[in-house]
Amino acid sequence: MARRAGDSTRVRRQPDRAHYDRGTIDAVLDAVLLAHVAFVEDGQPIAIPMLQARVGDRVLIHGSTASRAMRLLGAGAPACVTVTALDGLVLARSAFEHSANYRSVLLLGRFREITGEMERRNAFEALTNKLVAGRWDEVRRPSPKEMKASTILAMSIENASAKVRTGPPSDDAGPDAEFDTWAGELPIVSGFGAPIAAPGLKSGIPLSRSIRLLYEPKERT
Amino acid sequence: MARRAGDSTRVRRQPDRAHYDRGTIDAVLDAVLLAHVAFVEDGQPIAIPMLQARVGDRVLIHGSTASRAMRLLGAGAPACVTVTALDGLVLARSAFEHSANYRSVLLLGRFREITGEMERRNAFEALTNKLVAGRWDEVRRPSPKEMKASTILAMSIENASAKVRTGPPSDDAGPDAEFDTWAGELPIVSGFGAPIAAPGLKSGIPLSRSIRLLYEPKERT
Repeated sequence: MARRAGDSTRVRRQPDRAHYDRGTIDAVLDAVLLAHVAFVEDGQPIAIPMLQARVGDRVLIHGSTASRAMRLLGAGAPACVTVTALDGLVLARSAFEHSANYRSVLLLGRFREITGEMERRNAFEALTNKLVAGRWDEVRRPSPKEMKASTILAMSIENASAKVRTGPPSDDAGPDAEFDTWAGELPIVSGFGAPIAAPGLKSGIPLSRSIRLLYEPKERT
Repeated sequence: MARRAGDSTRVRRQPDRAHYDRGTIDAVLDAVLLAHVAFVEDGQPIAIPMLQARVGDRVLIHGSTASRAMRLLGAGAPACVTVTALDGLVLARSAFEHSANYRSVLLLGRFREITGEMERRNAFEALTNKLVAGRWDEVRRPSPKEMKASTILAMSIENASAKVRTGPPSDDAGPDAEFDTWAGELPIVSGFGAPIAAPGLKSGIPLSRSIRLLYEPKERT
């Protein structure tokens, strides 16, 4: 259960879609690579896309030491991490009831910079493996110079909520159900297309194990 | 060319990825359904996922009249609309050079509520057709009561920038290219899974034309 500081992440609209349990929250964070990280600069809210990785009770992001956003976030500015998966289009009989199925997490708080050498290394590993599980073991590790150029920030998962919509359009039982138009859900599915080798890839190098595993069918029939 | 008010949307990190032309900006806005809309409430930045539709020089969002976010945004609070497509994972030989291919638009400004009856109807049509082109003509139009329950907001595309990364990892020409691990891009592809009819769908109703067109192959060979 994510502890909620005050009411700030209580879901007010469509509270039936709200979840505050860590199981739901963590599952969304783990399933989605992309976060939109929002902060305020001179009164202007700014949300930027970043990759995120959850490790235990924290969400990690990383970026260049030279980045204005990373400096501001690293200084402890109030921040919001929003992670959203769009799962489908919900097509109703009425324009009004058209909707989307989605999973999203809203996480409020402040980032803290990770500074310990070993902790930074572990965070780098988690962020690399979030892209492709096991990738860290196949690549050249960051040099001291590269580590110095990287800022890694963490936000505790304390003030968080999830919002999830699934299922058919909500006009399924009302008078609109008599309307003669198709209604239902169009699931949005995503996956990886065929790998594109870098033009400079040395000849004779096959896909590494972590990548091959990505393309293996998840379920065998 | 999007006029830039001051420097607020000038891309400072990786300026070689920046685009300010309306062609690039509009293409991203049109290709992506989901926006993350950020605003500030009591000093706390909040970014929430919303569907967006571009019409001409404006981006439209809609929501419930009762929504706190819609009220705040409709009152002209400083806002940020970020629209991102994650196109692929960029796998380098070094952990440090791992990245993502993406297209994103950052749009700053203030929303204004659309209040004229015809303009609201047109906006509703655009938002419905953003989900599925042509859907508006197949569904029951909003009733006066439904229109009254809906707030539609618009932000002018004046202060906007796009950021785009494409192509192979950037260690392709350096000394890391000698490292014996596969490097390249894993494209992320998405599409629609098989339609799921609403449980209450009247029997004998086929997929409507707008939906069938979605599933038709885009290119014929």
